[in-house]
Amino acid sequence: MNSDNADIGLIGLAVMGQNLALNIADHGYTIAVYNRSPEKTEEFMAHCKREEPSCERVLGFTDLQEFTQAIRRPRKIVLLVKAGAPTDRTIESLLPHLEPGDIIVDGGNAHWLDTIRREKELTAKGFLFIGSGVSGGETGARFGPSLMPGGSLTAWAELEPIWRAIAAKVDPQSGAPLGGAVPGKPVEGGVPCTAYLGPNGAGHYVKMVHNGIEYIDMQLICEAYWLMKNLLGLDAGAIGAIFREWNAGELSSYLIEITGDILQQKDPAGDGFLVDQVLDAAGQKGTGQWTAASALELGAPANSIAEAVFARALSALKEERVEASQLLKGPDIQPAADSAALLDAIRNALYCSKICAYAQGFQLLSEAQKTYGWQLDFGTIAQLWRGGCIIRARFLQKITDAYARNPDLKNLVLDPYFKDVLHEGQSRWRQTVALAVSNGVPVPAFGSALAYFDGYRSARLPANLLQMQRDYFGAHTYERTDHARGKFFHLDWPAPDRPQMEV
Amino acid sequence: MNSDNADIGLIGLAVMGQNLALNIADHGYTIAVYNRSPEKTEEFMAHCKREEPSCERVLGFTDLQEFTQAIRRPRKIVLLVKAGAPTDRTIESLLPHLEPGDIIVDGGNAHWLDTIRREKELTAKGFLFIGSGVSGGETGARFGPSLMPGGSLTAWAELEPIWRAIAAKVDPQSGAPLGGAVPGKPVEGGVPCTAYLGPNGAGHYVKMVHNGIEYIDMQLICEAYWLMKNLLGLDAGAIGAIFREWNAGELSSYLIEITGDILQQKDPAGDGFLVDQVLDAAGQKGTGQWTAASALELGAPANSIAEAVFARALSALKEERVEASQLLKGPDIQPAADSAALLDAIRNALYCSKICAYAQGFQLLSEAQKTYGWQLDFGTIAQLWRGGCIIRARFLQKITDAYARNPDLKNLVLDPYFKDVLHEGQSRWRQTVALAVSNGVPVPAFGSALAYFDGYRSARLPANLLQMQRDYFGAHTYERTDHARGKFFHLDWPAPDRPQMEV
Repeated sequence: MNSDNADIGLIGLAVMGQNLALNIADHGYTIAVYNRSPEKTEEFMAHCKREEPSCERVLGFTDLQEFTQAIRRPRKIVLLVKAGAPTDRTIESLLPHLEPGDIIVDGGNAHWLDTIRREKELTAKGFLFIGSGVSGGETGARFGPSLMPGGSLTAWAELEPIWRAIAAKVDPQSGAPLGGAVPGKPVEGGVPCTAYLGPNGAGHYVKMVHNGIEYIDMQLICEAYWLMKNLLGLDAGAIGAIFREWNAGELSSYLIEITGDILQQKDPAGDGFLVDQVLDAAGQKGTGQWTAASALELGAPANSIAEAVFARALSALKEERVEASQLLKGPDIQPAADSAALLDAIRNALYCSKICAYAQGFQLLSEAQKTYGWQLDFGTIAQLWRGGCIIRARFLQKITDAYARNPDLKNLVLDPYFKDVLHEGQSRWRQTVALAVSNGVPVPAFGSALAYFDGYRSARLPANLLQMQRDYFGAHTYERTDHARGKFFHLDWPAPDRPQMEV
Repeated sequence: MNSDNADIGLIGLAVMGQNLALNIADHGYTIAVYNRSPEKTEEFMAHCKREEPSCERVLGFTDLQEFTQAIRRPRKIVLLVKAGAPTDRTIESLLPHLEPGDIIVDGGNAHWLDTIRREKELTAKGFLFIGSGVSGGETGARFGPSLMPGGSLTAWAELEPIWRAIAAKVDPQSGAPLGGAVPGKPVEGGVPCTAYLGPNGAGHYVKMVHNGIEYIDMQLICEAYWLMKNLLGLDAGAIGAIFREWNAGELSSYLIEITGDILQQKDPAGDGFLVDQVLDAAGQKGTGQWTAASALELGAPANSIAEAVFARALSALKEERVEASQLLKGPDIQPAADSAALLDAIRNALYCSKICAYAQGFQLLSEAQKTYGWQLDFGTIAQLWRGGCIIRARFLQKITDAYARNPDLKNLVLDPYFKDVLHEGQSRWRQTVALAVSNGVPVPAFGSALAYFDGYRSARLPANLLQMQRDYFGAHTYERTDHARGKFFHLDWPAPDRPQMEV
């Protein structure tokens, strides 16, 4: 094997790494691949040679030095290994084989603070670093993911052609994802779903918020399903048909589409629909939790994203819930009188809640960029989520449009399009939540999104009382509406005459 | 000044430190005090000599070595300095003056992971360490705080007499706080609000959850106030009178009591009630955020605690909300027809929500002890919150009773007393939330607590659909209700025939 003839290298041959390597090879690039356990490399290469038309451009290595020697300088090496300590160990083992100016691209689900740290450490050593979110699961990695890179701009100039080539593509007019790729024959044309997002951890942060939004998107769909099942008594197949219908309208998205498929899926092991046999205990991998924790820390009111994470946690207490259901009674469910009206109300609740959930996500990005010194382009972010990733949706074009209309838009709900949807849909959204609450059907996501909307549009909230409580027991002071911001007052509460002091 | 004659030492003479030192002296102990900036020590000693009857037992030092030499061995030194780096710096400067077996007590608002680290580091050096939550604000510190110690059991044996002496006291029968202390004349008798909670960070973790519960307690009161103002058109004085009335019943608590006072407080700078002039932008110090983030990380569904933190964050966006209120319209508010019935409904909503909020807090403690290897006594924790601290309430005796009835109680809402309250109150709770939702009054805390209740009592939740979505796009697998837990299945989704595989 000639040295120095691979365009790029990749370490980590789990499914994501395998698929991303094949995607790169399909686009005409020669790629060197390596895995810590050599068997994995050998297995992958055997499969590759047997089945993959582009395998002539995939060079497998079981020796790290040979692997790095095979890559053209400055080397570009993509890591797709487990986030956390395994990523650090991989970088450490790799460094002795690299030269100054070589580029490491972390494509794993890294915590953005790790990415910030790694970028700093590697830069100090003369290397270049990019942390790139890769979204779209296995299929995305194989035929076009959404790619969210942040880090060295010099490195990005080197990586960009490959990243643009392998990313998902959308129609330049409609923003709809271009599909239909098969091994060896990638999609031609279209706008690639990738763009440089900013220095150090910007890419991984944006990817994390994508995942946080994915959590709430999924939870909202689950609540819509649950209301149809419990208040309308529909079976899974009928509800699946409704989601398919909704997928033709403003809700059109990957998650709504697959929900239609999923609900209509028959049980391969019996009669009936599979969903009715599936255990209702949700798993999670951590990025939703990171998103909500970051929102708490930055003071961004992303309550619905947190509710989606907590809803998974509550679902996981399956046995405890089954026991509790024996003891705790709710109201008798009153079946809905007008099912067409209720379906319409649920659809409105879903779309309005979704708008507020995305508003929370973008509000969080806006807070994060202040803290971490990024300058995020929100329209671009919405754009590169239009294809490849899990939350891809027609709706994202509306977000791109909103930021095109007003790049300084403070909150998505203030954009004329979204504002009109919310004004038009809010009475049915309120009906849906009120009905769920009265009937004892839990809708934490619908309800929290509505509370966010009502809170955000309130010129006054009851936090005046809260500030006085804090001043009473902790002398934390308060401001007054009839004085400029930043002037603090304290009332000497335990004293009988209570003078008000400026402090 | 004789050396070696102080029973205990204290570093950090901000208000909390001053008041705790005076509290200790009032109980007959001789205390050495020190502050990094000597002026603070001098000021405090001057004030002390002028005004405090117990000042003969307070020894002020401006030299750290003299301070430590004045304390009887093994030394007990309480730190009341800023959490984080200042605490580490204080410990570092102190260590050269200590001997093995000496005891450091951190009474600040430390993050429990810092306390775990410090306990480990100091133990390795031969010192003993206690991290103790101190709750009750300035007045609590002066006349009886709730004290939540965790750490070295050997050190606790030394500290316990002092900690029990200075803690708040409650009536052994009713659990009601015993008040009436004045400088030099501490409360006699009663059950002290302190107990050893467990090793390393247990005390600071319990204190943090106390604060998380405090956040949601305050938010719930704010929502009740806001509904009375907006749906009943009552003025602050009238609402204050209602809180005073409620304080005679099951809601009786420090926060309800001071809310009555606060709402009836006239504006010292004008006519009308002060609350109407106070700015509705809440501050926060971080412990609520820590509590919610820990719940997210541990998978404990403490959604209402998180909502309370996010409600403060949203309130802080005051100028943005004022602008948004010009653009985003809600429904016209329909004033309530039967105000007595609505008041009763709001009271039920408040009490039921409060029960669910505390249930979330104790559920979080229960998850935390598994992760951190503690064995928390929940009945004891409720007991030591009955006096001194901000969330002190008659209600906490009910929690102690619940854990006495059943030490293995999985969730507070399953206890017969709380279950009956929830069954009895839930219809009015639901009416309140539905009415708020219909009228556009945000009630994130009431609503999230109800969603928690309805989710917890649901044998089935829609997470079955969510697990299928995760399997569809990410091959994350699912379990089946007709198979044992731990058996995982995957459907080969993109394939047309979709075989179900056990994986």
